[in-house]
Amino acid sequence: MGSPALRPQWVVAVVAGLVLSGPAAAQQPDESTLPATSVPGASSPRIHADGRVTFTLRAPEARSLQLEGGDGLGKGPFPMTKAADGTWSVTIAPPVSGFHYYWFVLDGVQVNDPASETFFGYGKETSGIEIPEPGADYYAIRDVPHGLVREQWYHSETTRQWRHALIYTPPGYDRDVKRRYPVLILQHGSGEDESGWTRQGRAQWILDNLIAASRARPMIVVMDRGYARRPGTPPFALGADTTNAELQSAYGAFEDVVIRDLIPMIDGAYRTIPDRGHRAIGGLSMGGMQALSIGLHHLDAFAYIASLSGPILRDKEPAGKALASMTGPFDTKSAYGGAFADPTLDARLKLLWIGVGTAEPDLFRQSIPPAVEALRRSGVRLTFFESQGTAHEWQTWRRDLEDLAPRLFR
Amino acid sequence: MGSPALRPQWVVAVVAGLVLSGPAAAQQPDESTLPATSVPGASSPRIHADGRVTFTLRAPEARSLQLEGGDGLGKGPFPMTKAADGTWSVTIAPPVSGFHYYWFVLDGVQVNDPASETFFGYGKETSGIEIPEPGADYYAIRDVPHGLVREQWYHSETTRQWRHALIYTPPGYDRDVKRRYPVLILQHGSGEDESGWTRQGRAQWILDNLIAASRARPMIVVMDRGYARRPGTPPFALGADTTNAELQSAYGAFEDVVIRDLIPMIDGAYRTIPDRGHRAIGGLSMGGMQALSIGLHHLDAFAYIASLSGPILRDKEPAGKALASMTGPFDTKSAYGGAFADPTLDARLKLLWIGVGTAEPDLFRQSIPPAVEALRRSGVRLTFFESQGTAHEWQTWRRDLEDLAPRLFR
Repeated sequence: MGSPALRPQWVVAVVAGLVLSGPAAAQQPDESTLPATSVPGASSPRIHADGRVTFTLRAPEARSLQLEGGDGLGKGPFPMTKAADGTWSVTIAPPVSGFHYYWFVLDGVQVNDPASETFFGYGKETSGIEIPEPGADYYAIRDVPHGLVREQWYHSETTRQWRHALIYTPPGYDRDVKRRYPVLILQHGSGEDESGWTRQGRAQWILDNLIAASRARPMIVVMDRGYARRPGTPPFALGADTTNAELQSAYGAFEDVVIRDLIPMIDGAYRTIPDRGHRAIGGLSMGGMQALSIGLHHLDAFAYIASLSGPILRDKEPAGKALASMTGPFDTKSAYGGAFADPTLDARLKLLWIGVGTAEPDLFRQSIPPAVEALRRSGVRLTFFESQGTAHEWQTWRRDLEDLAPRLFR
Repeated sequence: MGSPALRPQWVVAVVAGLVLSGPAAAQQPDESTLPATSVPGASSPRIHADGRVTFTLRAPEARSLQLEGGDGLGKGPFPMTKAADGTWSVTIAPPVSGFHYYWFVLDGVQVNDPASETFFGYGKETSGIEIPEPGADYYAIRDVPHGLVREQWYHSETTRQWRHALIYTPPGYDRDVKRRYPVLILQHGSGEDESGWTRQGRAQWILDNLIAASRARPMIVVMDRGYARRPGTPPFALGADTTNAELQSAYGAFEDVVIRDLIPMIDGAYRTIPDRGHRAIGGLSMGGMQALSIGLHHLDAFAYIASLSGPILRDKEPAGKALASMTGPFDTKSAYGGAFADPTLDARLKLLWIGVGTAEPDLFRQSIPPAVEALRRSGVRLTFFESQGTAHEWQTWRRDLEDLAPRLFR
């Protein structure tokens, strides 16, 4: 077999790519299927016909192994059991449809599942699983004209760093080279990054499908990394004595990035309609807080604001009392610097869109619907959308975008 | 502190994104630095002033922990030692500059480092570390005009699946809407995917910098996923009795994707110069084998072919004897169906570019330089580039692209 100095594993490595030539047969002999989030050639996790899911990891020397994940996966942790061949597995009840983060706890250490793709969540790369929703194809790639997602690097004067944003341009953008488009800035949640809305959220296919059905206006969607720090300032640390002013100041660097760096860059590099009537800002969770805060501070820049599962902050209280601050009575007069009490708000804000899932944790349920009610009582016009049966998870935010996008730029 | 039903971790989760507001201070108190591949807020791995690197993982309950990685990281595995606080660490000798895959082996299971970004390699998401090369800024993002990387989905008739390719368009592509560009198809290696050339390779910045210096012609670079399987065919499995014909047939589906699906899609969707004189195909390792094979079979489509660390196959032998096949005497008359013996080759092929690192494993050293010598002896005109001191790793392929791109489309 040739020179003894040769390392056979290299030959295998070079040609073994062929085994990655496609996903393993989606249909397994026992009628289970592999999720779209499995890496090529993987045979786990498996979704059974009844919706239950089996997770597997080979770890002959491990002493303990558990499965954990986001709320939609079920109430974990799920202890895994070891077979004679050293393979650990667990079968869980049918999770909520949609995307869920998950991980294993291997002898006490959180580790990813090598059989699944990873997604940036919880501040690091984290395994994900996609559970199909029967009958829902609004976030599937379909045979319709497709937009593109572009990786846009730009230099920020605010942070003095290069930043990476993802930009969705709608179908036809490259062909109709004189046409200009409205812009939605769409932000991810805490611990996630600019890739969340396309990789976990599939925003590009939601938009493609809405535009193909003439349900949404063709638009540019800008997804930036929702973190920013001014040069020389220390990382923010939330403490018991953190004040709302400090919290706002920490978010303020990102606000400056959006207003001073991002929007001018986008208006320069893309064929936008560069006025407030054709610009929206939205986001999920932390991104919803940012959208509300930045949008209400800059009504000269945005006529459309959307908060998807974003806790609606009362002002005044120290942020260190964040629980009380987020869930106590919402005072429309003082919140957001009095923006909601401004009599010109209604004429200037073409859409205030607020969403939350009905199965979200108390923090969100006790903050968002009461604030919506208080706002409505005080005469603020808004659209409120509740995603049925979904928690603080991507299926909520996919549905949100499906409802929100058609309402923009009308 | 509000309702007892509230889960405080949600509050932290929602606002904790602020701690991700930038990389942790790159300079540590002990003069060590964090690599560009660390996730925000991480404090490991650390590169010391003398080039040594310390890797750390907290795993109080683990019984054994090792560091392993690609060849450029050093000769592993590296056993890690446990401190009283349950943190394991190891400091290794200075690795080769550039990008290296790595992972931990935790009680026998390969796991990623939560402190680092992951990259698709070895057929799955794998941790990576970027070791700076002193004085080398050709692959750094610099203050020059930047191109874009676009995510392009397209439907393949060959595989009957949606495929995902990344497309680099050069600076000015969106502005000069009448200008047309030549096209380089640039493929990743085995176990990697279409994201390799931009995430690990930084091809977009290499091109930006070359174009800014007027050293390379502005070009479109197409990076597709180098795996394909016809509907209904089983996954390829390399066996002792695999014939070269079977190997070529397995690669043949990707060849059809390139010729029948990818090139027509690119020529339709982008402003290309759609002729052979303005189209190149190149790739690394498995991608180099594909580039040579597809390029030589389709000289009507390509005038430029580049194989970066691609084993140069002799024909005739069964591929199951791959070691002998790759490293035995290279017969220019029979190899690649006699393509090199075609007297019209020289006039049609404007560039045949072949590269290899001087520190690559025997499989590559014993295949590539002798084949280059045989080709030259038989009168085939080619450019041969050796990357000094680098192995089968991304630093080799970055240098390759830096040498190759200026020679294209002249």
